[in-house]
Amino acid sequence: MSTGFFDGISKVAYEGTDSTNPLAFRHYNPDEVVMGKRMEDHLRFAVAYWHSFAWEGGDPFGGPTFVRPWHPQDDMGRAKLKADAAFEMFDILDAPFFCWHDADIRPDQGDFAGNLATLEEITDYIGEKMEGSRTKLLWGTANMFSHRRWMSGASTNPDPDVFAVAAATVKSCMDATHKLGGANYVLWGGREGYETLLNTDLTQELDHMARFLHMVVDYKHKIGFKGQILVEPKPQEPSKHQYDFDVATCIGFLRKYGLENEVKLNIEQGHAILAGHSFEHELALATSENMLGSIDMNRNDYQSGWDTDQFPNNTPEVALAYYYVLKSGGFTSGGTNFDAKLRRQSLEAEDLIAAHVGGMDICARGLKAAAAMIEDGGLDEALNTRYAGWQTPEASAMLNSDLASITERVLSEGINPEPRSGRQEILENYVNRFV
Amino acid sequence: MSTGFFDGISKVAYEGTDSTNPLAFRHYNPDEVVMGKRMEDHLRFAVAYWHSFAWEGGDPFGGPTFVRPWHPQDDMGRAKLKADAAFEMFDILDAPFFCWHDADIRPDQGDFAGNLATLEEITDYIGEKMEGSRTKLLWGTANMFSHRRWMSGASTNPDPDVFAVAAATVKSCMDATHKLGGANYVLWGGREGYETLLNTDLTQELDHMARFLHMVVDYKHKIGFKGQILVEPKPQEPSKHQYDFDVATCIGFLRKYGLENEVKLNIEQGHAILAGHSFEHELALATSENMLGSIDMNRNDYQSGWDTDQFPNNTPEVALAYYYVLKSGGFTSGGTNFDAKLRRQSLEAEDLIAAHVGGMDICARGLKAAAAMIEDGGLDEALNTRYAGWQTPEASAMLNSDLASITERVLSEGINPEPRSGRQEILENYVNRFV
Amino acid sequence: MSTGFFDGISKVAYEGTDSTNPLAFRHYNPDEVVMGKRMEDHLRFAVAYWHSFAWEGGDPFGGPTFVRPWHPQDDMGRAKLKADAAFEMFDILDAPFFCWHDADIRPDQGDFAGNLATLEEITDYIGEKMEGSRTKLLWGTANMFSHRRWMSGASTNPDPDVFAVAAATVKSCMDATHKLGGANYVLWGGREGYETLLNTDLTQELDHMARFLHMVVDYKHKIGFKGQILVEPKPQEPSKHQYDFDVATCIGFLRKYGLENEVKLNIEQGHAILAGHSFEHELALATSENMLGSIDMNRNDYQSGWDTDQFPNNTPEVALAYYYVLKSGGFTSGGTNFDAKLRRQSLEAEDLIAAHVGGMDICARGLKAAAAMIEDGGLDEALNTRYAGWQTPEASAMLNSDLASITERVLSEGINPEPRSGRQEILENYVNRFV
Amino acid sequence: MSTGFFDGISKVAYEGTDSTNPLAFRHYNPDEVVMGKRMEDHLRFAVAYWHSFAWEGGDPFGGPTFVRPWHPQDDMGRAKLKADAAFEMFDILDAPFFCWHDADIRPDQGDFAGNLATLEEITDYIGEKMEGSRTKLLWGTANMFSHRRWMSGASTNPDPDVFAVAAATVKSCMDATHKLGGANYVLWGGREGYETLLNTDLTQELDHMARFLHMVVDYKHKIGFKGQILVEPKPQEPSKHQYDFDVATCIGFLRKYGLENEVKLNIEQGHAILAGHSFEHELALATSENMLGSIDMNRNDYQSGWDTDQFPNNTPEVALAYYYVLKSGGFTSGGTNFDAKLRRQSLEAEDLIAAHVGGMDICARGLKAAAAMIEDGGLDEALNTRYAGWQTPEASAMLNSDLASITERVLSEGINPEPRSGRQEILENYVNRFV
Repeated sequence: MSTGFFDGISKVAYEGTDSTNPLAFRHYNPDEVVMGKRMEDHLRFAVAYWHSFAWEGGDPFGGPTFVRPWHPQDDMGRAKLKADAAFEMFDILDAPFFCWHDADIRPDQGDFAGNLATLEEITDYIGEKMEGSRTKLLWGTANMFSHRRWMSGASTNPDPDVFAVAAATVKSCMDATHKLGGANYVLWGGREGYETLLNTDLTQELDHMARFLHMVVDYKHKIGFKGQILVEPKPQEPSKHQYDFDVATCIGFLRKYGLENEVKLNIEQGHAILAGHSFEHELALATSENMLGSIDMNRNDYQSGWDTDQFPNNTPEVALAYYYVLKSGGFTSGGTNFDAKLRRQSLEAEDLIAAHVGGMDICARGLKAAAAMIEDGGLDEALNTRYAGWQTPEASAMLNSDLASITERVLSEGINPEPRSGRQEILENYVNRFV
Repeated sequence: MSTGFFDGISKVAYEGTDSTNPLAFRHYNPDEVVMGKRMEDHLRFAVAYWHSFAWEGGDPFGGPTFVRPWHPQDDMGRAKLKADAAFEMFDILDAPFFCWHDADIRPDQGDFAGNLATLEEITDYIGEKMEGSRTKLLWGTANMFSHRRWMSGASTNPDPDVFAVAAATVKSCMDATHKLGGANYVLWGGREGYETLLNTDLTQELDHMARFLHMVVDYKHKIGFKGQILVEPKPQEPSKHQYDFDVATCIGFLRKYGLENEVKLNIEQGHAILAGHSFEHELALATSENMLGSIDMNRNDYQSGWDTDQFPNNTPEVALAYYYVLKSGGFTSGGTNFDAKLRRQSLEAEDLIAAHVGGMDICARGLKAAAAMIEDGGLDEALNTRYAGWQTPEASAMLNSDLASITERVLSEGINPEPRSGRQEILENYVNRFV
Repeated sequence: MSTGFFDGISKVAYEGTDSTNPLAFRHYNPDEVVMGKRMEDHLRFAVAYWHSFAWEGGDPFGGPTFVRPWHPQDDMGRAKLKADAAFEMFDILDAPFFCWHDADIRPDQGDFAGNLATLEEITDYIGEKMEGSRTKLLWGTANMFSHRRWMSGASTNPDPDVFAVAAATVKSCMDATHKLGGANYVLWGGREGYETLLNTDLTQELDHMARFLHMVVDYKHKIGFKGQILVEPKPQEPSKHQYDFDVATCIGFLRKYGLENEVKLNIEQGHAILAGHSFEHELALATSENMLGSIDMNRNDYQSGWDTDQFPNNTPEVALAYYYVLKSGGFTSGGTNFDAKLRRQSLEAEDLIAAHVGGMDICARGLKAAAAMIEDGGLDEALNTRYAGWQTPEASAMLNSDLASITERVLSEGINPEPRSGRQEILENYVNRFV
Repeated sequence: MSTGFFDGISKVAYEGTDSTNPLAFRHYNPDEVVMGKRMEDHLRFAVAYWHSFAWEGGDPFGGPTFVRPWHPQDDMGRAKLKADAAFEMFDILDAPFFCWHDADIRPDQGDFAGNLATLEEITDYIGEKMEGSRTKLLWGTANMFSHRRWMSGASTNPDPDVFAVAAATVKSCMDATHKLGGANYVLWGGREGYETLLNTDLTQELDHMARFLHMVVDYKHKIGFKGQILVEPKPQEPSKHQYDFDVATCIGFLRKYGLENEVKLNIEQGHAILAGHSFEHELALATSENMLGSIDMNRNDYQSGWDTDQFPNNTPEVALAYYYVLKSGGFTSGGTNFDAKLRRQSLEAEDLIAAHVGGMDICARGLKAAAAMIEDGGLDEALNTRYAGWQTPEASAMLNSDLASITERVLSEGINPEPRSGRQEILENYVNRFV
């Protein structure tokens, strides 16, 4: 029986670029083959439970604007109603995946034992719904940042009892993710950081965060969970400073603590922007270290200094992102999770569907443009030409040499290189042929 | 014989806080003992040759404004005149240290052999001047970012010949630093990064940068240079993205390539700000990893999005910086280099002296406030109280435990911690008692 | 009868700079005379009802952290308890003023008639409390941004019925402010702006905003309210773009619509920062146009891109702000409202008091430093010297001349001016003698 | 006789979207009719002399990288060679317009009389070249920010002699613009602002700036120059704070001083971004006040905090810009000036041509998308629907009413409006159908 929330909205179909139907795909055609793989299998779209179903439309200056039949989210009946609506939307979009935090799906009971019970009940319920659906779980995660218990961090809390509850909470979420066949498990440390250094022991907190992550990895192996463990970089917000600042910081942390072979990264456009990087920078850097796991696709307003989590709408940006995803070999366990929310004034069920349709179309355009650039080979060729000098035996020998020997060669050969054009505009124009 | 440039300006003396003499120290009293050490030995001030003597007052929208007798800087005669003036200023300030790039001190000859010759001649000349002065060399470095040769990077250049010239250049600067008794050798990679990923092979460039740094370390040992090798984080400018983004990125890079025991960091206030960090964050993080080498003291305008390199003038900020320097044990080979330039409209010799006097006074105020806080112990006590729970045997045991065992304990003991105040405002007020 | 919330906290006394009592004033001495006026009469401190009593500690990623006996704020009994606690705090601080939004003080009833009733009841109650207190009302205002009704603006809403409710709401708040003897009435348009231009008619919205403000001014005169009408600039947040962007934009708007003699500005540090200005810039500009009405004193984190509303803690910054306040002649109807909130982890009543004590002390230090600079006259003298050329008859004549005549003079006299030092560092050092 | 600089580069032709020729137009087809007007007549492209011919490739950390036969720019022979090359490029691009600063085209002689002489000689030379070319002058302007003479401002300088030289300089540039048939005259005040308020008399400087602008307007009428006077907003850089901060600030200034009917705005994408606005915001606001004169088309890196002046390359952004240009009625005297420079590593003549070709193509795509949206009417229709309530007599009556009457109506009618969706994502998706 339908919740009625999406009444009047049919399953979204691919209608091609001539369509003016706002609830049709114009570019996303799941079965279309791109570089030898179905588009759906490339993109592996996931709907985020939190933004689409748990967020009520509040912001720092205002309360809820959305009116959903499953609000307030404080009892199991409404939790199930919310799940019903969620699966209705998954069907409408034919979404291959979804993602959740525990706090998105279960009513909060105020303590761990209570939350464990509601989590088990609701994930049983969701498991049953998944049996009648083709939508799978891309990843689960624990929300350890919203409840006041976590206000000073979870694994990095000054209070060891909070660490304990965090450990129990993550175990419960890993168990639930495993039960539902999740492809990954994510940790995002929104309160793992500080508001002021004055009250913070940075060294101890980082050690505890690493110890916690080791426990997570150990538990994964203990229970036979085959999914990928992912951490998610973000520089700040809600904390003034977060430990998982950006891709480079996370990789440095993982390597320091011997976790680099067990943990990969879930990289978000909006978080990249907040850290002063482009999304493609973060993706390229993770690819270069073989650490790209999954992406949180959204858009950040470059001019609002906070995490705006908007649906992507700029094809040229998205194309560069998928270019690096494809260069990394494409997603294995990961996918494209829409960590994106409606604007607070977009009140209707139709807004929610249309936002996803638009986002999926933009990603499809981006993927196709990226694939076309790779198949054309123009960027690779430009790189090969630019770095060709390093293919010579002299260049290789130099790298195994030393400052004094190189100096001798510079002097004896009178090496005085003339700079060569970087051809940036020509390459940017090249990209514009495809987007 | 005097250059005449500083005519009418006497040696700057400590006159105490009642002085209204703009060219007297009101706070910096070199012989005053703070925490058991002379203030001069704590602060280890250095004058930066480039901003004070080489920069001509240009900016992206305007040409030189300064009129100095040693401009243009294109022959050896004027290079020596510049050195004469520099040492006059060192004497006026009684500066214990100075720092240089090769390009600051020698006229450019257009190729490596020529530059090597002028570098040797001018460092001989400077060496003689140092014999008659108490000012020592804090560090030397190679400017591998100004000449067009370096426009696409030095050690990360797509052209192996540029790598070769970079290697020779650094060797020559290390030799010169060694000859002049430098306490450190610094590498700042202003062009080690990219303008666009479209023309950049990130992986190869980072590998080359690491290989280069290994050569530097090897050469240091080969010639018996006892100084510390330092790299300097900066996120961008001149490049759109620089590889040595911030402290965390640099440490991650050094650890990845096995350089973490050989190289430390030279940390700049302005670069911290550009990377989205506070100066104290970068210092605290480096301290936490035992990687703090030296500091470039300046001030960045929080609202101008570029590197403004202003003289420090905010005591509360500077106090927090020295707090972490003192907590790290204070400087060993490092010091406080004024990587700070006059505003472009500050044309006079008096401006140059007054800017340094003001900066030294602010640092002295900051140091004394930091020392007073440490001696008072209020911040340590607050930290100890906040993290006291981790001193219990249960907490230690938990860190060596696992998710399942902790979960059992949470359930059996009904652990449900109540949050405790972080007391941020009280701690901020505490700091304000000292600044 | 006490609410018990502040139990154990006594009235805060001035104890002088040697005090280490965290709940004593070290600098704020209300009766101390500065430039001929009592410090209290200069600063005119106000406590903000919203941050101190209505905000529950939530942020975009987390729910309430504070536990206050008057939460949830949904009935009249708790509204009165909140008022009781508020006046207890006013007494503890001996605060001369307070400020409110309607939504801070009355429980929301869901429609205008209901809200009018609760507003009248609670303001009667507050009026009685004021009779037994020396704390007065600096200003009242209408919260037309939190309730979902206002999500698309109040006076600029696309729906005329919202304009109507906004008009009625402001009337009710003006009436209440007048009843309680308020010294000013403020309008802040947090939703008067847009999320996207795509759905916005900028021209019509600005016209409506002006029309609304004219009605406010007319109503003020009609009821004989003698207080000053103030608008408050802010560039963004909650809206992506707000019409009252900054001081210059507000003044331009007021002048365009003929309101510049009726309305002045309430200027906030944090909003200035978000708009890319220093606080002192906004104050100096308002002073230059005789538009400075009152200030919202707080501190914004320069590195967090949102409105952090922290208590001020940097004396050098605050001193420059009061310098311009004093240069404008000081406050008349306006004052220093602490639009500042505890950090979310600062849970205790003591935190709330200490934060205000620290803020008041920093303002007192800033005021005294500003007054000392004015009395010393160094900055005025520097300005007079720098602009002295404009006092000559030739200069005055030129201003009444034309391009052709001036050109003739330049050519005939060979005018070729030599630049003169701006002496910025010397002036910054000068300021540091006082802060 | 050719300069040889562009040897091997032919006139750029329109070849259509299938072309892979990097030096062909794929979208810009000058004669193609869009909304009843030739594309060339809509876009009115101009090449900027400064970036393309005067800039040598320097940045704050590095010297020139470009090698051009007309560098250094210090004698008349090379100035003429530069002009020859410029007109060769205008021909290659078939550019309808160009723009200059005096300092771009004439060698600097160190004083006004000398500069007047070289300006007259070179503009005679350029005038002759224009006779053999179809490229016209979009605007001229005076560079009053590069030479050290202007370091503290031109019309706002503390020294009246600098004001005098500024007046003479602008007169000479207006005469030259008039002589060459310029369609507009522009003033950009890069140094009209301050580095520190401590040495600045804001009030006097603004008054002088207004007085200066009045003289400019008077002189325009005196000589019968029919072009439009334009000022150009920018918030900062080179100055810490510039008076012409943004569109709203400029309009406020013009209205205050009675200049709003004589002066319009030249609006730049990069400057909009630096001021915290989108380009389309600035264009829409100027349109709303009938103040849009011309545009400086470029792209600013959202993550570099300075003016990057890159060639535009993002069609969705550019489409929204032209949407507002078309809504304003399109350009009359104004046009699309490429205030854009090559990246510093783009050394070749081919880079310079390709950058313009790419920029022109992006603008053509943007224009066509904008026109298609206007012709489709979807955005207008959405606006009309959203604001339809204001078309009722009740709404109009309310605007002519007062707070008390409106309150009565709210109470008597029980007005309690329900919010309606803003449909942002649906509108964003709509735009994506066209870009």
